[in-house]
Amino acid sequence: MAVTIPSIPKGTRDFLPEEMARRNYIFDTIREVYSLYGFMQIETPAMENLSTLMGKYGEEGDKLLFKILNSGDFLSKVPQDELSAASSGKLLRKISEKGLRYDLTVPFARFVVQYRDKLKFPFRRYQIQPVWRADRPQKGRYREFFQCDADMVGSDSLLCEVDFVNILDEVFSRLGIRVDIRINNRKILAGMAEAVGAEDKITDMTTAIDKLDKIGLENVNAELEEKGFSKESIAKLQPILALSGDNTEKMDGLRQVLSASETGTKGLEEMRTLFGLLKNTPLVNNLTLDLTLARGLNYYTGTILEVRALDVQIGSIAGGGRYDNLTGVFGMPGLSGVGISFGADRIYDVLNQLDLYPSDAQSKVRIIFLNLGEKEAAVSMGYLQQLRKAGIACEIYPDAAKFKKQMSYCNDRNVPFVGIVGESELAENVVSVKNMATGEQQKLGIGQITDLLSV
Amino acid sequence: MAVTIPSIPKGTRDFLPEEMARRNYIFDTIREVYSLYGFMQIETPAMENLSTLMGKYGEEGDKLLFKILNSGDFLSKVPQDELSAASSGKLLRKISEKGLRYDLTVPFARFVVQYRDKLKFPFRRYQIQPVWRADRPQKGRYREFFQCDADMVGSDSLLCEVDFVNILDEVFSRLGIRVDIRINNRKILAGMAEAVGAEDKITDMTTAIDKLDKIGLENVNAELEEKGFSKESIAKLQPILALSGDNTEKMDGLRQVLSASETGTKGLEEMRTLFGLLKNTPLVNNLTLDLTLARGLNYYTGTILEVRALDVQIGSIAGGGRYDNLTGVFGMPGLSGVGISFGADRIYDVLNQLDLYPSDAQSKVRIIFLNLGEKEAAVSMGYLQQLRKAGIACEIYPDAAKFKKQMSYCNDRNVPFVGIVGESELAENVVSVKNMATGEQQKLGIGQITDLLSV
Repeated sequence: MAVTIPSIPKGTRDFLPEEMARRNYIFDTIREVYSLYGFMQIETPAMENLSTLMGKYGEEGDKLLFKILNSGDFLSKVPQDELSAASSGKLLRKISEKGLRYDLTVPFARFVVQYRDKLKFPFRRYQIQPVWRADRPQKGRYREFFQCDADMVGSDSLLCEVDFVNILDEVFSRLGIRVDIRINNRKILAGMAEAVGAEDKITDMTTAIDKLDKIGLENVNAELEEKGFSKESIAKLQPILALSGDNTEKMDGLRQVLSASETGTKGLEEMRTLFGLLKNTPLVNNLTLDLTLARGLNYYTGTILEVRALDVQIGSIAGGGRYDNLTGVFGMPGLSGVGISFGADRIYDVLNQLDLYPSDAQSKVRIIFLNLGEKEAAVSMGYLQQLRKAGIACEIYPDAAKFKKQMSYCNDRNVPFVGIVGESELAENVVSVKNMATGEQQKLGIGQITDLLSV
Repeated sequence: MAVTIPSIPKGTRDFLPEEMARRNYIFDTIREVYSLYGFMQIETPAMENLSTLMGKYGEEGDKLLFKILNSGDFLSKVPQDELSAASSGKLLRKISEKGLRYDLTVPFARFVVQYRDKLKFPFRRYQIQPVWRADRPQKGRYREFFQCDADMVGSDSLLCEVDFVNILDEVFSRLGIRVDIRINNRKILAGMAEAVGAEDKITDMTTAIDKLDKIGLENVNAELEEKGFSKESIAKLQPILALSGDNTEKMDGLRQVLSASETGTKGLEEMRTLFGLLKNTPLVNNLTLDLTLARGLNYYTGTILEVRALDVQIGSIAGGGRYDNLTGVFGMPGLSGVGISFGADRIYDVLNQLDLYPSDAQSKVRIIFLNLGEKEAAVSMGYLQQLRKAGIACEIYPDAAKFKKQMSYCNDRNVPFVGIVGESELAENVVSVKNMATGEQQKLGIGQITDLLSV
């Protein structure tokens, strides 16, 4: 066999033990909080039928799907004239029937419809799995990355939103990341568009005002004008964009603005109810009504949520919203729900930048025994088994290598303690335990070591 | 958009909450035990370059790889004449450069070579990820399934084998599955072949005697004769196959048989040392020297391990062995190691058949609050937050639906307790807590509920 120089496809990643421990810390935190709120984990296969995936993410999305070649002699069913036509698009349909999942939402919609008779609604599910996109790889954008979604489907109740706001708050509190949770409502945005007489231009309006923070009011107005908003519309929008104060003050200000719009009034009412309900479950982080927030506008129909880190400039690190037709495309219309998603890769970067990982997210091994010879190692193996029975992760250097080499391995592994069993320790039935932080060394019986490391 | 009837590709599976909880129970058990022994988790991407995968699993394996179509206009670089030739094999190389991983071993070998300067050897890694094979789907054989591998590379020491035998024993003890752990050594098999004068026929020999349990001695001998073994060879093999008694007796019996073979004697010595070392770490399950065990013969070079469930007929549920050239094909020769792998799907079936899942592997939610109205729900949300702060998973039915509908949901979710906050409970600052197993109902303050459910 020829020697291959090893590498992985661009845009994909290997996770070494230290990175993996840190990622598990994030996933475990999210998983624990989801579970506390009654969400149940599901998994779907990496491959979905292309008929499930195609047409769900727009034309661009179709191109970004990774397609799987049919197995076996994949050309056998392709007529010669179609082959000669050399059209990738037409040939594709003949040689590929499966693709890798592009997100967790479409597979979840497919799942809900497929098992509609088995699931109990309202259904709370979470799902943490990789997705694949044939995007051009760049810094922070990968072709394989994990999504961490939770959705609650089959209920219109704003209590669902309360749970999700609390989950966002709780996860970031646990991770030690200070955040601003921003909230808006698609119906309020619709009301705003109505109020300024631009009902049909809601997308243009939200796209423009979404940039308020970045480009400033003057440029937003210029963009609106460019998109065909009348001077009158733009003038009417100014007091809305100028609304300030706390959430209650903003809602009070909105009341009159939206009074003529039924949808807008409904949205405002939902927002008031939600803020009222949230008084029962105090948050650690700020929840801010942000009228410029328009995330996923074409998909969301009610509440919109987005989370930003306060101490790192990195964009949104979590988000979500309410939708009212998750499964229509699979023949089950009118299923309403709310969902959120955590951006694990960005959260990983934030934790790294702020150095917020707990020390035990790295090495779980508490003690490594050196190997000073056959007899010593044999006795050590018995000690190790006792430690493990007490739930203490430990190991022995497998070879009776030079002392220095073994100690260097222990240093690299970053363990708090090293156990040494030599001739004298054998005779005394003890282990010399070296504290790697202080350099102190003491002789202890295995029971004492168990106590020491169980702390 | 047209309505699609939802389904998934054949040979793949969705995991619903209950199945998922059971699978997590298995994976978590394996993960915990691996961690106790110092193994560190890594992950590799689902997609590998085809240059990494092809030629590693034999001709048949190459066919069973799922290949990914190059993205974009994948035909653009294919000359017209090659297209017209309509050869799937030739076209493949032009339109596909990536494949889904087929196992965890080849990606791990690639990983070790790629990061050889970053890793500390001896390196203990574990990896639990799905693999994909375009096999014909059938009962118990899937196109996507999980492997749970642990390997220790960079050491010749038999202490590694001791760890793996202990890990196998510990995992199945924790799962409550009674097993027989069988052990053999490739060098002993080589010695047997030498001893009967059929050095060059070791594969034929092991393939035949591997069937001893199933087809009986007579048929094994017939197969050996068919494969060209001389009558003398077959006669010499009989006393070896007839070796009985405990492990020590078998090893004693082997000593003379293998005395003329250097390799065989070495293998026997390894086996004796290993059994000696294992005296320091007593096992719960039986470890049996099985001279007919020949799993992965072409790959393993020393110890061979296999685990079978005692109470279910299902074949091997875990196995592994020592190899001495994991990474040669990637340009790093001579790297020795030992590895094992758990068959998660079969273990899942065994646990189901023996009904061995702990009850908390199913629902973690301890209490569901009914929703009897706006005010009642709002107060309940506060209670729920207090319970969650105490680590108790809980939820509220989001809609103020009919009592019967809500109770039926609680029944389906299989929760131990239901919390009821109605008008009288509101007035008294209590919750009526119904024990779903006994039907008993009592009024409790939220502090009392926390105590009740923290047990």
